[in-house]
Amino acid sequence: MKDLAIVLVSGGMDSCVTAAIARTQCRLALLHVNYGQRTETRELKAFRDIVAYYHVPENNILISHIDYLRKIGGSSLTDASMDVQDAQLDSKEIPTSYVPFRNTLFLTIAVSWGEVIGAKKVFIGAVEQDSPGYPDCKPAYYEAFNKLINVGTKPTTIIEVETPLISKSKTEIVKMGVSLSAPLHLSWSCYKNMDKACGVCHSCFLRLKAFSEAGVKDPIAYV
Amino acid sequence: MKDLAIVLVSGGMDSCVTAAIARTQCRLALLHVNYGQRTETRELKAFRDIVAYYHVPENNILISHIDYLRKIGGSSLTDASMDVQDAQLDSKEIPTSYVPFRNTLFLTIAVSWGEVIGAKKVFIGAVEQDSPGYPDCKPAYYEAFNKLINVGTKPTTIIEVETPLISKSKTEIVKMGVSLSAPLHLSWSCYKNMDKACGVCHSCFLRLKAFSEAGVKDPIAYV
Repeated sequence: MKDLAIVLVSGGMDSCVTAAIARTQCRLALLHVNYGQRTETRELKAFRDIVAYYHVPENNILISHIDYLRKIGGSSLTDASMDVQDAQLDSKEIPTSYVPFRNTLFLTIAVSWGEVIGAKKVFIGAVEQDSPGYPDCKPAYYEAFNKLINVGTKPTTIIEVETPLISKSKTEIVKMGVSLSAPLHLSWSCYKNMDKACGVCHSCFLRLKAFSEAGVKDPIAYV
Repeated sequence: MKDLAIVLVSGGMDSCVTAAIARTQCRLALLHVNYGQRTETRELKAFRDIVAYYHVPENNILISHIDYLRKIGGSSLTDASMDVQDAQLDSKEIPTSYVPFRNTLFLTIAVSWGEVIGAKKVFIGAVEQDSPGYPDCKPAYYEAFNKLINVGTKPTTIIEVETPLISKSKTEIVKMGVSLSAPLHLSWSCYKNMDKACGVCHSCFLRLKAFSEAGVKDPIAYV
């Protein structure tokens, strides 16, 4: 039997393609975290649609609700008093959508769960190129996290974090998704809207550009 | 003005003394995590009592509710179907009270909050000696976590985890607490009960032994 892998699935395009990649090597366990992000309802629908598409059994699904990121604020994704910026691709600044230490939370939940269900891998769809300011989207961060797992879990636990998209461009990710029949039509990327994607936030901008460059029509609806 | 430090306060003896130590160097911000542990109601009371004792302002208090550790189980502290073991001090096995990757969750929440409120330190009352099987109570684990903070947060964020009790014995911790006037009478350690401590679980056993060896009467009530 194939090893079990936990895939972090926000419901966005990158995590959708990451699940498709993980599935070529492993049995899937899918994890979704509701941390008070603006478009959570829509993201959760995307997650459930992806779960159904891949026929993931109920025991291999975990949806976790985390309250503190909304309580502490500090990010436009979780703090209603901050505006979501439109795309600013030339900026060297960390975007206001940065959620402090968020990927560490995601990986931590995945590793805890992985210790209990015996997963060997955790897949996360981090991409360095389109989030140059995010410290937790760089290879050095994942190397440090894998060292932490090694010293911080039971001696019998062997879990490794994999980042198959980290050095890919968004355009390459679209192409990989198409070639693996990833359910891109079920994914959701917009940071602002929940019915039709806004097309102008940082996340929409990158997605549309990637589909355009890949020569593929984005199957989701835009305003 | 002194630097701000976040102290992880479960409400137990070790975290109570850790807060007393942190207070000699820093302004206090206190963090409590409800992760579905059996005695949460009692621990939260201890936390609130310690907050009041040190007059910590409302903005410097965070109580976070985390659902996934109870959902995934795998520990006698969070899984109602597992019994809490009595003390087994000679065992080399990891006790059933081990909660998978729990300290990583605590530190992750603290660092996220610390990035927002500008804390410079995170104090955690981990003790290696009385939890020989817990991987996340060893110095190597904290070194790895500090490296993760360094690569995983904003370049302007400088937060360091401190473990002032890691190499102390429980007896030394009682003595330190007394000398710093830590509110040990407000702390709670029992893993089983919420009114009067059981005196026989692993945590009670270690606490009673420590007070006895320190020649101090434990101020809390036992059955």
